[in-house]
Amino acid sequence: MSAHGEDVVSGVRTPLHISELERAMPHVYENLRAITSKLEKHYRDMQDFEFTIQDGKLYMLQTRNGKRTGLAAVRVAIDMVREGLITQEEAIFRVEPNQLYDFLVPRLVEKGEKIEVLATGLPASPGAAVGQIVFTAEDAVKMHQKGTFKSIILVRGETTPEDIAGMEVASGILTSRGGMTSHAAVVTRGMGKCCVAGAGDCVVDEANKELRVKGKTFKHGDWISLDGTTGRVIAGKLKTLDAQPDDPDLVKFMGWVDPERRLGIRANADIPRDAKQAREFGAEGIGLCRTEHMFFAEDRIGHMRTMILASNEADRREALKKLLPMQRADFEGLFQTMESLPVTIRLLDPPLHEFLPKREDLLVEIARLEETKPKSPKLKELRTLLARVEELHEMNPMLGLRGCRLGITFPEITEMQARAIFEAAVAVKAAGGNPHPEIMIPLIGSIEEMKNQSAIVKQVAGEVFKETGKTVEYLVGTMIELPRAALTADQIAEEAEFFSFGTNDLTQTTFGISRDDINNFLPAYLKAGIFKQDPFATLDQAGVGQLVKMATAKGRNTRANLKVGICGEHGGDPESSSSATRSA
Amino acid sequence: MSAHGEDVVSGVRTPLHISELERAMPHVYENLRAITSKLEKHYRDMQDFEFTIQDGKLYMLQTRNGKRTGLAAVRVAIDMVREGLITQEEAIFRVEPNQLYDFLVPRLVEKGEKIEVLATGLPASPGAAVGQIVFTAEDAVKMHQKGTFKSIILVRGETTPEDIAGMEVASGILTSRGGMTSHAAVVTRGMGKCCVAGAGDCVVDEANKELRVKGKTFKHGDWISLDGTTGRVIAGKLKTLDAQPDDPDLVKFMGWVDPERRLGIRANADIPRDAKQAREFGAEGIGLCRTEHMFFAEDRIGHMRTMILASNEADRREALKKLLPMQRADFEGLFQTMESLPVTIRLLDPPLHEFLPKREDLLVEIARLEETKPKSPKLKELRTLLARVEELHEMNPMLGLRGCRLGITFPEITEMQARAIFEAAVAVKAAGGNPHPEIMIPLIGSIEEMKNQSAIVKQVAGEVFKETGKTVEYLVGTMIELPRAALTADQIAEEAEFFSFGTNDLTQTTFGISRDDINNFLPAYLKAGIFKQDPFATLDQAGVGQLVKMATAKGRNTRANLKVGICGEHGGDPESSSSATRSA
Repeated sequence: MSAHGEDVVSGVRTPLHISELERAMPHVYENLRAITSKLEKHYRDMQDFEFTIQDGKLYMLQTRNGKRTGLAAVRVAIDMVREGLITQEEAIFRVEPNQLYDFLVPRLVEKGEKIEVLATGLPASPGAAVGQIVFTAEDAVKMHQKGTFKSIILVRGETTPEDIAGMEVASGILTSRGGMTSHAAVVTRGMGKCCVAGAGDCVVDEANKELRVKGKTFKHGDWISLDGTTGRVIAGKLKTLDAQPDDPDLVKFMGWVDPERRLGIRANADIPRDAKQAREFGAEGIGLCRTEHMFFAEDRIGHMRTMILASNEADRREALKKLLPMQRADFEGLFQTMESLPVTIRLLDPPLHEFLPKREDLLVEIARLEETKPKSPKLKELRTLLARVEELHEMNPMLGLRGCRLGITFPEITEMQARAIFEAAVAVKAAGGNPHPEIMIPLIGSIEEMKNQSAIVKQVAGEVFKETGKTVEYLVGTMIELPRAALTADQIAEEAEFFSFGTNDLTQTTFGISRDDINNFLPAYLKAGIFKQDPFATLDQAGVGQLVKMATAKGRNTRANLKVGICGEHGGDPESSSSATRSA
Repeated sequence: MSAHGEDVVSGVRTPLHISELERAMPHVYENLRAITSKLEKHYRDMQDFEFTIQDGKLYMLQTRNGKRTGLAAVRVAIDMVREGLITQEEAIFRVEPNQLYDFLVPRLVEKGEKIEVLATGLPASPGAAVGQIVFTAEDAVKMHQKGTFKSIILVRGETTPEDIAGMEVASGILTSRGGMTSHAAVVTRGMGKCCVAGAGDCVVDEANKELRVKGKTFKHGDWISLDGTTGRVIAGKLKTLDAQPDDPDLVKFMGWVDPERRLGIRANADIPRDAKQAREFGAEGIGLCRTEHMFFAEDRIGHMRTMILASNEADRREALKKLLPMQRADFEGLFQTMESLPVTIRLLDPPLHEFLPKREDLLVEIARLEETKPKSPKLKELRTLLARVEELHEMNPMLGLRGCRLGITFPEITEMQARAIFEAAVAVKAAGGNPHPEIMIPLIGSIEEMKNQSAIVKQVAGEVFKETGKTVEYLVGTMIELPRAALTADQIAEEAEFFSFGTNDLTQTTFGISRDDINNFLPAYLKAGIFKQDPFATLDQAGVGQLVKMATAKGRNTRANLKVGICGEHGGDPESSSSATRSA
């Protein structure tokens, strides 16, 4: 801007930072402040602007939205309120919701560091992680238990439920495949752990335990840094800054935000530890307890497999009997922790094969044994297991035997889960607690399914109340996660006492797009402008939103006081949840 | 009924069959005829009734719908019209649409035969087949080519596109898994070939080439009989009666039906032979030409695989260049055969992995080679192939990279197909023909996708017309087979000139149920009364029907003259298509 002569100041941020100007040339300062204020009202964001003063006259050259970290945004907003420049309500809109992550997760220290970005994947779960690479969940657990690696980065093509133990001990996860709602992304967000997903430039050679990217090869034990907030994969060992959830500015800012919000917030939690943390963070209840997560634990998966492999109801009931006390203890813990707050428990949801060994692993193991030890007794055993796995094998498991279809096909599963819930609730109440179970039937598509499962739950409740001589209040409701549920919500609301919109699944079926497979074409779609954003990250208002709106209206037409909520990742996306507020 | 004394006649069918009574006791006969006529008006079906005559007085004891074969139903209806008892219009309603199959497919001769029903599966494709068992498509082709077996029954767990060659030479297909819209069911109905699907009691041991059922074991070459009309699997070699499509009674009856119908009928056909047959049966055009079927032929699958395995656009275009003249020849044949009738061509729809070897087969073959010939060059080759197959592997292929997502990700595929269509149409027109191509973009979920693909089609059309100096009229439309397409049909109709409801896929996504996997829980659903029938066999009016109605209304609101049709199995189901008529 030197062409404009003397006193050129460039990139000055807001009148607050030019107090020298205020002292030296008060009339110019006033002028500048008025213009800035108008611009910021319009753009709802801090303005960077360039100006020049020539012969005591102010010339505005250009203006743009200022880029700041979340920490800076909150501090500046608080300063401006303190100086009387904006109101508290205005201050709220000066900070983007996503910027608050900067307080809640660790960050990489980049100042003064020489950084080599190897690849950029999806910012699947914010935060930073620096650690040594392992390529399998088993290695992660081993290195953690032995204490060989202090900090572990688990690198996988994609993760599956079998990787959970490894993910738990890792500081961060990197995958080469999968979208914003892939297993890795969803689970790490649940764990509050950094994840970069779908970094397509990374070749993860699991067989040879190598990560190849940008002409370089990283092996087991090599150091790497992940930035889950931007999706960057960085070579070597950067320093990190801890999260600052107790930062006084953040606490003050959130104190202004809280009275303004229109949505209630509940947490996802399956175990008392998570429930406790959620309470501390201010959650008003548990919105989703995924009961299947309770079955992956080492002492349970065996009983779960026995149950699934059972060829008749009697054997299935026998295995379920062993799971019952474990589930009951889980629920007791949750009810105790949440005290008088509601706990929404979703009955078993995923396809059963998720609890069994992988079909392709069995096929390969059998083929190897056939070649090397054709008479091994293990071979016979594996073949029997494979036969059952084949029976359960589905072309499209997302559209198969899962959700309420499990409880309808095997009513004894619903009976066991309902019994565990009510026995736990009665026990907690007897000990002076005040449990509020809300039982959620997953994947309902018709009133008939809802009636079937609701009847089992209510019958078991009655039995437990009779056996114990005590009662607890409870609700029975459903996920609305299939288009048909939304289309027939007026009928479903006759039986369901609450709706929780499962917008991940609803997006899958409304679009006919699997969240696990979207990455095969999402890049082309974003490039061609067909999608403005990943529909699993930001709720599609024209299609999915239309169903949400329709279901809410139809449901409330039948049941005026129907409780309605949103369950899933979209609830945490500012753009999606503001539209949810409008429709709900 | 002997308690009622003399003259008891039981199970007499309609006044026509009791002419002796008419002669002997005319007043009783008149009375009986009046009652029968009223009952039949009410039930719209022939009545079996029991009566007794005591002291010259007529007592009606009970009445029920008469059970007759389709052949009898048509003959009786024609007789009654001839005798002036009912009108032609009434006669139409005396025959159930499904009863007409009795004329169109072979039937088992059961009279005087001792029949052992081994199992009952789904009546997946009507007709009868008697033949010798084979367990693989390769065996079917081999036994057919050598002439070893005169008639072949292909027995499989379930069929896949790779079994097509074997299915073509078989007389009938039996599967132990899969529903009314499984691959086996859909393909055999297309072929007009008998199929019993999902016969769960049959254990198909493909490895040992054994069929075990009801304590018996059937091996390669054993005789078996299938009744695709009832779903029965019968031991041994029954006799069959040929189809009678030219039966004079049927021809007369259909002559009455034709002027009354409100739906136009087009055929599914991918090759000129089928198109020719469809024309002869009176089809008013081709409603669905599945272009992918053209790629499974032996001389093409190689180029198709090369195209899919190509790692860059240039290689892909090279392979597509080799497919172009083949596709063009296909379309020329179809346009010539259909003369001036419309031909609706659906662009490539299925997930690409369908054209590649199966992932699990590769995994097993590689494992075996690793154990036995670890240095074989074949091993390296298979690993490269597996790597690409793994890249294309999808958790839920039905919700993955398929339909228009293929043409958007690889625009050169759409370009090649459009060029083949327009070059063929121009050539046929030049030779004096009158082709009417209607190009159908599959799996559209948004107007943006429709615009993208429609633009490519129109651009290629313009190029071909310019190159050849000739033009043909054509339409570009879409399948409505996703809930989001129905919900945003008003937008999509801005670009689409016709809608064809793909109710199979629309049922899959509206319910969130895979048609390949429904059999895992359908029996429980039918038993519990949750489904009254398989939603893939009879259109669900409350959910899927609501979307069809909504899309038709929204589409015609945007484009008043929008052509609307139904594409898929539901179109052939009397209950479904009568509701389709109501909504369209």
